[in-house]
Amino acid sequence: MATTAQKPFPATLSALMVEEAVRAALLEDLGQAGDVTSDATIPASTTAIAVMNSRENGIVAGMGIAQKAFELMDPNANFKAIAKDGDEVTPGQDVARIKGPARAILGAERVALNYICHLSGIASYTAQFARKIAHTNAKVCCTRKTIPGLRAFEKYAVKCGGGTNHRFGLDDAILIKDNHIAVAGGVREAIEAARAFAGHLIKIEVEVDTLEQLEEALKAKPDVVMLDNMNPDELRKGVKIVDGRIPIEASGNVNIDTIKAIAETGVDMISTSKITMSAPTLDLGLDIKIQ
Amino acid sequence: MATTAQKPFPATLSALMVEEAVRAALLEDLGQAGDVTSDATIPASTTAIAVMNSRENGIVAGMGIAQKAFELMDPNANFKAIAKDGDEVTPGQDVARIKGPARAILGAERVALNYICHLSGIASYTAQFARKIAHTNAKVCCTRKTIPGLRAFEKYAVKCGGGTNHRFGLDDAILIKDNHIAVAGGVREAIEAARAFAGHLIKIEVEVDTLEQLEEALKAKPDVVMLDNMNPDELRKGVKIVDGRIPIEASGNVNIDTIKAIAETGVDMISTSKITMSAPTLDLGLDIKIQ
Amino acid sequence: MATTAQKPFPATLSALMVEEAVRAALLEDLGQAGDVTSDATIPASTTAIAVMNSRENGIVAGMGIAQKAFELMDPNANFKAIAKDGDEVTPGQDVARIKGPARAILGAERVALNYICHLSGIASYTAQFARKIAHTNAKVCCTRKTIPGLRAFEKYAVKCGGGTNHRFGLDDAILIKDNHIAVAGGVREAIEAARAFAGHLIKIEVEVDTLEQLEEALKAKPDVVMLDNMNPDELRKGVKIVDGRIPIEASGNVNIDTIKAIAETGVDMISTSKITMSAPTLDLGLDIKIQ
Amino acid sequence: MATTAQKPFPATLSALMVEEAVRAALLEDLGQAGDVTSDATIPASTTAIAVMNSRENGIVAGMGIAQKAFELMDPNANFKAIAKDGDEVTPGQDVARIKGPARAILGAERVALNYICHLSGIASYTAQFARKIAHTNAKVCCTRKTIPGLRAFEKYAVKCGGGTNHRFGLDDAILIKDNHIAVAGGVREAIEAARAFAGHLIKIEVEVDTLEQLEEALKAKPDVVMLDNMNPDELRKGVKIVDGRIPIEASGNVNIDTIKAIAETGVDMISTSKITMSAPTLDLGLDIKIQ
Amino acid sequence: MATTAQKPFPATLSALMVEEAVRAALLEDLGQAGDVTSDATIPASTTAIAVMNSRENGIVAGMGIAQKAFELMDPNANFKAIAKDGDEVTPGQDVARIKGPARAILGAERVALNYICHLSGIASYTAQFARKIAHTNAKVCCTRKTIPGLRAFEKYAVKCGGGTNHRFGLDDAILIKDNHIAVAGGVREAIEAARAFAGHLIKIEVEVDTLEQLEEALKAKPDVVMLDNMNPDELRKGVKIVDGRIPIEASGNVNIDTIKAIAETGVDMISTSKITMSAPTLDLGLDIKIQ
Amino acid sequence: MATTAQKPFPATLSALMVEEAVRAALLEDLGQAGDVTSDATIPASTTAIAVMNSRENGIVAGMGIAQKAFELMDPNANFKAIAKDGDEVTPGQDVARIKGPARAILGAERVALNYICHLSGIASYTAQFARKIAHTNAKVCCTRKTIPGLRAFEKYAVKCGGGTNHRFGLDDAILIKDNHIAVAGGVREAIEAARAFAGHLIKIEVEVDTLEQLEEALKAKPDVVMLDNMNPDELRKGVKIVDGRIPIEASGNVNIDTIKAIAETGVDMISTSKITMSAPTLDLGLDIKIQ
Repeated sequence: MATTAQKPFPATLSALMVEEAVRAALLEDLGQAGDVTSDATIPASTTAIAVMNSRENGIVAGMGIAQKAFELMDPNANFKAIAKDGDEVTPGQDVARIKGPARAILGAERVALNYICHLSGIASYTAQFARKIAHTNAKVCCTRKTIPGLRAFEKYAVKCGGGTNHRFGLDDAILIKDNHIAVAGGVREAIEAARAFAGHLIKIEVEVDTLEQLEEALKAKPDVVMLDNMNPDELRKGVKIVDGRIPIEASGNVNIDTIKAIAETGVDMISTSKITMSAPTLDLGLDIKIQ
Repeated sequence: MATTAQKPFPATLSALMVEEAVRAALLEDLGQAGDVTSDATIPASTTAIAVMNSRENGIVAGMGIAQKAFELMDPNANFKAIAKDGDEVTPGQDVARIKGPARAILGAERVALNYICHLSGIASYTAQFARKIAHTNAKVCCTRKTIPGLRAFEKYAVKCGGGTNHRFGLDDAILIKDNHIAVAGGVREAIEAARAFAGHLIKIEVEVDTLEQLEEALKAKPDVVMLDNMNPDELRKGVKIVDGRIPIEASGNVNIDTIKAIAETGVDMISTSKITMSAPTLDLGLDIKIQ
Repeated sequence: MATTAQKPFPATLSALMVEEAVRAALLEDLGQAGDVTSDATIPASTTAIAVMNSRENGIVAGMGIAQKAFELMDPNANFKAIAKDGDEVTPGQDVARIKGPARAILGAERVALNYICHLSGIASYTAQFARKIAHTNAKVCCTRKTIPGLRAFEKYAVKCGGGTNHRFGLDDAILIKDNHIAVAGGVREAIEAARAFAGHLIKIEVEVDTLEQLEEALKAKPDVVMLDNMNPDELRKGVKIVDGRIPIEASGNVNIDTIKAIAETGVDMISTSKITMSAPTLDLGLDIKIQ
Repeated sequence: MATTAQKPFPATLSALMVEEAVRAALLEDLGQAGDVTSDATIPASTTAIAVMNSRENGIVAGMGIAQKAFELMDPNANFKAIAKDGDEVTPGQDVARIKGPARAILGAERVALNYICHLSGIASYTAQFARKIAHTNAKVCCTRKTIPGLRAFEKYAVKCGGGTNHRFGLDDAILIKDNHIAVAGGVREAIEAARAFAGHLIKIEVEVDTLEQLEEALKAKPDVVMLDNMNPDELRKGVKIVDGRIPIEASGNVNIDTIKAIAETGVDMISTSKITMSAPTLDLGLDIKIQ
Repeated sequence: MATTAQKPFPATLSALMVEEAVRAALLEDLGQAGDVTSDATIPASTTAIAVMNSRENGIVAGMGIAQKAFELMDPNANFKAIAKDGDEVTPGQDVARIKGPARAILGAERVALNYICHLSGIASYTAQFARKIAHTNAKVCCTRKTIPGLRAFEKYAVKCGGGTNHRFGLDDAILIKDNHIAVAGGVREAIEAARAFAGHLIKIEVEVDTLEQLEEALKAKPDVVMLDNMNPDELRKGVKIVDGRIPIEASGNVNIDTIKAIAETGVDMISTSKITMSAPTLDLGLDIKIQ
Repeated sequence: MATTAQKPFPATLSALMVEEAVRAALLEDLGQAGDVTSDATIPASTTAIAVMNSRENGIVAGMGIAQKAFELMDPNANFKAIAKDGDEVTPGQDVARIKGPARAILGAERVALNYICHLSGIASYTAQFARKIAHTNAKVCCTRKTIPGLRAFEKYAVKCGGGTNHRFGLDDAILIKDNHIAVAGGVREAIEAARAFAGHLIKIEVEVDTLEQLEEALKAKPDVVMLDNMNPDELRKGVKIVDGRIPIEASGNVNIDTIKAIAETGVDMISTSKITMSAPTLDLGLDIKIQ
C-alpha cells in the first residue's frame, strides 16, 4: 500500500477568510478609541521586537492568523514564523518573531494570541486523542459542535492536530438520524429520499443505535454509517457486520480515556465534540522588547 | 449596609447584537444548500415539539440567544424559556420548550446549542470559581482573553456565573504594563501621560510585579492596581500597603485550586483567562418529538 | 422498488439567505433617492392590485424571492402565490396576486421580476433538457458555472426544473482533473491524496478523457467518475466498463440537441453549463391596477 | 462636426466596486473549506502558467474583474492582459496570461471565468445588435432588467459592446408610465409633478403607447420620450411628430431580427432587455500548465 | 398655470436605507456592553412615557428615523408622531410621544435625537434660506458637500426645508468644470464627450466663470448651466443671455445675507454647502417620565 | 509638577476604522456608474498635481482620512501631508500635495474634503472654546451628541482642537441621571447599583441639579460629578463642596460666550454638544493642475 498517501498535505486556510475574520476581531478589540494605553504612553515612532513562544507542550495552529493580525494593524509590522502549523512545541520554544512599531505589536497582541492559543489548544487536545489511537487505523474526528463564527478555523486546527473533519455544515453531507427515519418511514425510505433529493456528490451517513438497525440500514447502501453510543463489544460486532463495505464512525461517550478501546474495535472514525468545545487553551505568550 | 445593593440586576445582552451574531451563525451552518437532510426526509408541514434540557449540573447562560436562533429560522417556531440565564440547573432539568416546524427546529438546533453550551460552560466554570471565594469579598473577573467575535457574549456569561468583567477592549480602560512604564520613564510618568491623554471617564489601572513598584505606583494615584504573579504572602502585604484606597486586582497563577488562598488575602478582584478560554462546555441537549 | 422515493421533496431555499439577497437587490435598484417617479406622482396612500403572470410556456422558480421583495419594501404589501416553484405555466397564466401600497408594488416590481424571470428561465431551460431524457435514467446536472452571487439560487432553479445539482463550491466535493493527476503522479495517487486529505464525508470524483484512463481510475475506487468529451459510442463503452459500480457523469458538448443520445448511453448524470449560463429569461410581467 | 467626439472614451468600472464584488464571489466559491481538490493534490509551492483564450467570436468584457480574482486569491499571481475590454476576439485568441502559484490559479479560475464569460456574452450580444443598426444613428440601449447584484457590471458590458445605458436605478432618472399618468391625472400633470419633485438634474422620460399620447406628452416638454410597442410605421410617424426636439427611445418587441427596421425609422435609442437578460455566455477558457 | 403642480409631494426616504443606518447607529452607541447605566439601575420591566419636543423654532425632519430607533431597540416601544417631517415647530411644541420599556427609551434616545436634531437643523436652516427668496422663482439647492454616510438623509432634510437637490453622487449627472474643459479641449468638446459617454438619461451641466464662457457653452447645448462666483450684475446679464433656454444655477458666495440679491437676478437654483455642512443643530429633547 | 505630562501625545485614529469608513464614503459618492464626468472627458492616463489648502484660520483634523481617500481610489495617487492634525492653519496655507492619475484625484476630492472640512471645523471650533479657558485648569469636553457613524472621528477632532472626550458610548462609563436616581430610590442606591453591576474598570458619574443633591451624591463616592445647568455662583459653591475629591464636570448653557465664566469657577471639565453638532465647517479646498 502507498505509504506516501498516508501523509496528506498540511491543511490550509483561505487567506480571504482569514483576513475578513482577523479584521473583525481587531475592530472588536480596538473599539472606538483604540489602544488608549499605548497611544498615551508610547510614541508613534517607537519600535519593538517581540518573540512569541509557547509555555506548554502542544501543537501549534494559527500562525498565519497571528501574522495577519500584526500586518493588518500595521503593514510595517514584520512577522517571521519560526514554527509552522502542526508542529510540536515545548515550553519556552519560540514560534515567531515580530518586529515593527511598538503600538502595532501591543495593539494586535491579544487578538493574535486569542486565535493562536484557542486553535493550538484544539490542535493539542486533538493530538492527545490521536496519540491514544495511533496504533489503530481509526482517526479522531470533529463534529459541528464548534464556536459560532469559528467553524472553519476550528476544523482546520483539528487537522493540524492529526484529526479529521466531519461535515462543515448542514449542507455538505447528509446525516440521517432517528427523527428523519421516523418521519420518512424507515431507514431505507430515508436513504432513498436523501439520494433522490441531494444529488450524486453528497455523501449519505446514517446513525444507528442498535445492531438490528445497522443490518437494516446496510441494505439501503448508505455511504457511511455511524454507530451511536455503542460499547466496544457492540462496536466490534458492528465492524464485523459491516465487513469493510463502508466506513464506520463511532460516536457517543468518547473521551481521552475511552477512545483507545473504541479505536481497537476496528471502527474508522471516532467523532467527538470534546476536541473542539472542551479543549483547554494552549498557553502561548509574547515577550516584547521596546527598542 | 444596603444589602439590596449587593444583588445587582441580572446582566443583559443587546438584542441587536444578538440578532446580528445569530444570523451569521445560522448562515455559517446552513451553507449554500441548507439542511439537506431534513429537506429531503421531512415534509415542510411537519411540526415538532422539542425540550431543551441539561445533562449536567451548572449555570445556564444564553437562553435569549437560543430563542433568537429558532425564531430567525422560522417566526413560527415558538420558544418558551423555563429557566433563565444565571439559574442553576441539574441533570435532566428542562430549560426550554420549542414548538414549531420540524425543519426549523432541526435546522437551528446546533447553532442554539453551540451558543448555549459554550456560554453555560463559561457561566458554570465561573460559578465554581465564585463558590470557592464566596466567603470573601473578592470577585472572580474575566480578561480580554476571549474567543474572537464572542467577547460581549462571553463577558455576559461570566456575569451570569457570578463573576465580574474587566475592560471590554483596548479602548474603555487603561491598563499600564511594564512596557508602557519603561517607555514612559516610570510609573508616575505613565499614569500622568494616561490621565492627560484619555479623559476623565477612563479608569487607569497599573500592573505591578513587586511591592516596591506598588508603593511607587500608589504615589501617582491610579484608579486600580493589579498585583501580578504574587504569592498569597506578597498579596497580603500588598493589601496592607494599599489600605483600602483603591481596588486591588490579583492576577497570575489563578486556577480553581489557588483562588481560595488568593481571595483570602483581601484582594478585591481576581482575574483569570481560565473562565473564558478553558471552560469545558456544559452539556445541554434537545429532545425532539416529531408530531 | 419504492416509486414514492423517486419523487423527491421540492427543493428549498434558506429564508435567511433570501432575505439577505433581496435586501441588497432592492437597495441596488433604489439607489440613494429611491423611486423618484412614483414618489413624485403617486400619493403615499394610494393602493394597487397587481397580478403577476407568465407570457410564455415554462417552469416557474423564485416565488418566495418575489414575495420577499414586495414584503421588504413594505410589510403592508400582501403577496399571494397562485403557482408554486416547479409548476408549469402557460402564456397568460397568473402566478401571484399582490395587494398593497402602490409605491411599494411599483418599487419592488423590477427586483421581483428580475429574480423570477432569471430563475424561471433556468428552470424552464433545465426542464427542456430533462424532457429530452425523461425516458432514460439520466439526469441533467448543473455545474459551478453560475453568476457570481447567485449560485444557491441558480442551483435551486435547476432543481425546480427537474435537474440535479453538482457540487456547490470548491469545498464540498473533490473533482480531480488532469492537472491534479499530473502533479499527484497518477490517478491512483491523486485519489489517495484526496482521500487522505479530505475526510470521510467528501465524495471524490475523477474526470477522465479516455477509456484507458477510466480503467486506471476505477482501480483507485473513486466515488463518481466523469467521462469528459466522449462521444456516445465511447460513453456506452464506459458505461459497460463501470458496470454499475459507481455513478457516471458525462460532460462536454452537451446541448439541447445532443443530450438525448448521451442519455441513452446509460450514464447517470449529464452536466452542462448551458442550463445556468445560457438560459434565456422566462418572460413574466406584472399587471398593476391602481385603486 | 467633430468626429473625434463621436468616439467616446472606453467605459470604466470602479475599482472599489470590483474588489468588493470579486471578494464576495471568491468566498462564495471557496466555501468554508476552500479548494480541497487542489489542496489535497498540489503542493503549495507548485507554480503554473495559464493562458486565457476565447473559443468563440465575440467582444471581451471583464478583464479587470478577472485580474482582481487572481490577485485577491494570491498577490503572487501575476495577471497580464493581452486583450482589453471592448476588443473583438476570435476562436483561439489569447486574452490574458497568468503566472503564479498553481493553487491560486486553480482556485480563482472559475470566478474569473464566470464573470468574464457572462459579461463578454452581454458585450458580444450587444455588439450583434449594434452591428445591425450601425448604418443608422440609433443606439441599442439596456434597461433595468439585469441580474440582481450585477447591474453596474452588466451595464458596463453593454457599453463595451457598443451599446448605451438607460438609467441605473429607480433614483437617477424619471420614467413616467401609464400608472403614473393615470394617478397624476394626465401626462402634463405627471411631468409637472415630476419636475417639481425631483430637481433640475434629473431627466424626465415619458412612455407613450399612441401617437395621440405622444402629441399630448410633447406639450409638457419631457426630456425624452419612449415610444412603446409601436410598429415601424408608427415609429416613423412619431419621429416626424417629435421633429428633433427631444431624443426618442423605442421599446417593445426588440430582437436581433426586428432592430434594423426599428432603427431605420429614425429613433435615437432602442432599448431591450434581451442584451442583458438573454445573452448567451461567451465561451472563454483557461489552459493551465503546471510547472 | 397648474398651481397644484407647484406643491410637490413631500420627500420620502427608503425604509430599507433607514433601517440599515439606524441599526448601525444604535450599535455604535451601545458598544459591546450596552447601556450599563440603565441596566444597572432600572428593572427590565419598568416602563416609561416620553415626549419629544422642540426647544426652538424650526422645521422638523427625521421623524421616521427616530421612530425606527426606538422600535429597533425594542418592538414594544410605541412611537406616535405628532408632527410630520417638514412641519414648522415652535419652542415647547411636542413632536412625538413614545411609550414602552424604560430601558429601550433611554437606550435609543441619543441616536434618535442625534438624527432628528441634525436633520431638523438642516431643514430649518434651508427654510431660512428659502424664506429669503420666496418672492422669487429661485430655489435653494444643496451640493455634494455632505457628511460621509449621511448624503441621502441630508438631501432629504433639504427638501423638508423647502430646498431642492443637486446630484446625489458623481454618477447621476454630469458637471463639467474647468479641469474637464481644459483637458477636453474646450467647452463644446467636453459637452460632446459627455453626451457620447453617458447616455440619454444623464443631464449635463457646465460650470462657467465668465459671460464669455457662458456664450460659448450655450452653443454646445448643455442641459443646465452653473454661473460660478458671479456678482448679481453679472448674474443678471447671464440670465438675459440664457433667455429661458435652460435652467441656470448660481453658486459661490452664497449665504443667508447674499441669497436674496442673487435670487432676484432671475436665476433658477442657488446652490450652497452652507445648508448641509454648516447648519446649526435644531434643539429637540426628550422628557421621560418613568412609570 | 511634571510639565511634560501636561502635553499629551497627539490623538490617534485606528487605521482599520479609517479604511472601512472611507471605503464606504467613496462608494456612496461613486454610486453605480462612478465619476461619469471625468470618465467622459479625461483620459485614464492623464495625471495631475493637486494642492490642498485652507481658506480660513483654524485647526486641521483628518489628514490621514483624506490621504486614505485618495489612496483607496488609486494606489498610484501619492498624498504628501504638509500640515499634521492639530496644526493651526491660516488662509492660503497648503496642507497637502497629491500627485497621481487625474481621475483618481477628481474622484476622491469630495470625500476627502467632506471629511477634512467637517472634522477641521470641529477641531477649530473646539479650539475657540479652549482658548477662552486656557488661563484656567478646565477643559472643554464633547458629549455623545455626534453625527451617527462619525463618533470616533468627531471625538478625535475634538482632541485635535485641544478638547477632551467624554464617554464614547453607553457602555464605557456610567452616567447616572434623574431618571436612574428616581427608579433606583436615591443617589446612593443608584451609585451602589451601578458599582455592583458594572465592574471595577467603569467610572461612575452622577448628574446633579442642586447643591443639596451634590452633597447627597458625594456621600456615595462617585468617580465624577456633573453639575447640570448651574450658574457660575452655584458652580463655585459646588467646587468648594467637592473640594478636590473628585473631578467636576459642568454642563448646560455652555457656549462660546459663557464658557469663560464657567471655567473660572474652578470646574474641571465643561461639556457641550456645540463643538460637535454645531461647528461650522472649515473651508479647505483643492487646487488641481492637470499635467
